[in-house]
Amino acid sequence: MRIFGDSISGNCLKVKWTADHLRLSYDWIETDVLKAATRTPEFLALNPAGQVPAVILDDGRPLAQSNAIILHLAEGSALIPADPYDRARMLEWMFWEQYSHEPYVAVARFQVRFQGKAVADLEPRIVERGKAALQRLEDGLAASPFLVDGGGQSRRRRPGGLHPRGRRRRLPPGRLSEGAGLDRPGGEGLGYHLGRLATFR
Amino acid sequence: MRIFGDSISGNCLKVKWTADHLRLSYDWIETDVLKAATRTPEFLALNPAGQVPAVILDDGRPLAQSNAIILHLAEGSALIPADPYDRARMLEWMFWEQYSHEPYVAVARFQVRFQGKAVADLEPRIVERGKAALQRLEDGLAASPFLVDGGGQSRRRRPGGLHPRGRRRRLPPGRLSEGAGLDRPGGEGLGYHLGRLATFR
Repeated sequence: MRIFGDSISGNCLKVKWTADHLRLSYDWIETDVLKAATRTPEFLALNPAGQVPAVILDDGRPLAQSNAIILHLAEGSALIPADPYDRARMLEWMFWEQYSHEPYVAVARFQVRFQGKAVADLEPRIVERGKAALQRLEDGLAASPFLVDGGGQSRRRRPGGLHPRGRRRRLPPGRLSEGAGLDRPGGEGLGYHLGRLATFR
Repeated sequence: MRIFGDSISGNCLKVKWTADHLRLSYDWIETDVLKAATRTPEFLALNPAGQVPAVILDDGRPLAQSNAIILHLAEGSALIPADPYDRARMLEWMFWEQYSHEPYVAVARFQVRFQGKAVADLEPRIVERGKAALQRLEDGLAASPFLVDGGGQSRRRRPGGLHPRGRRRRLPPGRLSEGAGLDRPGGEGLGYHLGRLATFR
């Protein structure tokens, strides 16, 4: 497999981390978004949306969108729940992450860490929604250490239906969120999670 | 099933349309975002993210995020490709839709249609990215009538591996895009698609 990614991007790194965790072999092709490497004719032939990450699978076929890629790579592994409802909840978090977390936390991180912007100069909407996303993640992780391990509301609603714990089900977002300059919510969920991510391979 | 949705929202209507297409029975609970019906304690207990659509499944368990819901409802139906690669491409489009289409096209539609804003007064970034999203959809639909029907690059790369056509694989976005006031790209793909959507049940 060939992974086209920019190593400052969390969306790209999560493809790398998933491939590493699954011990898949790949070539990493560094693709610098700031140098418009995603706007070349060659890259646009691979992904017409002009976004990284994008991969060329071992059979030569292309695939884009970080979450579509990691779901495809992880299919059949312990990263994906077998239970249909748990799988749906995993997808709920993944769509939430791209819609309500990444556009604020990742944008804040990019502007603070790579463009040198002061946190006080971030657009207020980005800060407000970024903090709300981190709080949502905090609450979700406090309720269930992998967000969908039969925890939270489903646990209360089907007391006899707990899923076995201890399997990695889903690597929640947030690994790079500390670079965003946003205050981390109080509570143990996200702090514990970030410590755990530091050792994730 | 109970569907909590705001009927001016495309994200909510696609859950309704998927349920209708699959002939699932449900109660629609109109949930007015503009009147903060997603901020009540009762709603936040259902979906702590405070977003519609959200559903309560027949077994009493909650699920949120439009694309997670429709994927769960459609699992095992002809709406979802059986082939793992086609499935991954479907997910690629669905994640793209929430990240690169909805935040521009749906926001433009909301501001023009429901807030009475003139197209000329839309934020230029929204117009530019909205138009780019509609063009991307036009190109994808021109290459393959359901975006992932074994068409496009995969068709060229595996000449013996075409999938049977004629099955609905994925209802692409765009049904409500005309309300956004954005010019539709030239070409047959999106125009044909919008005509087809008008008869979709």
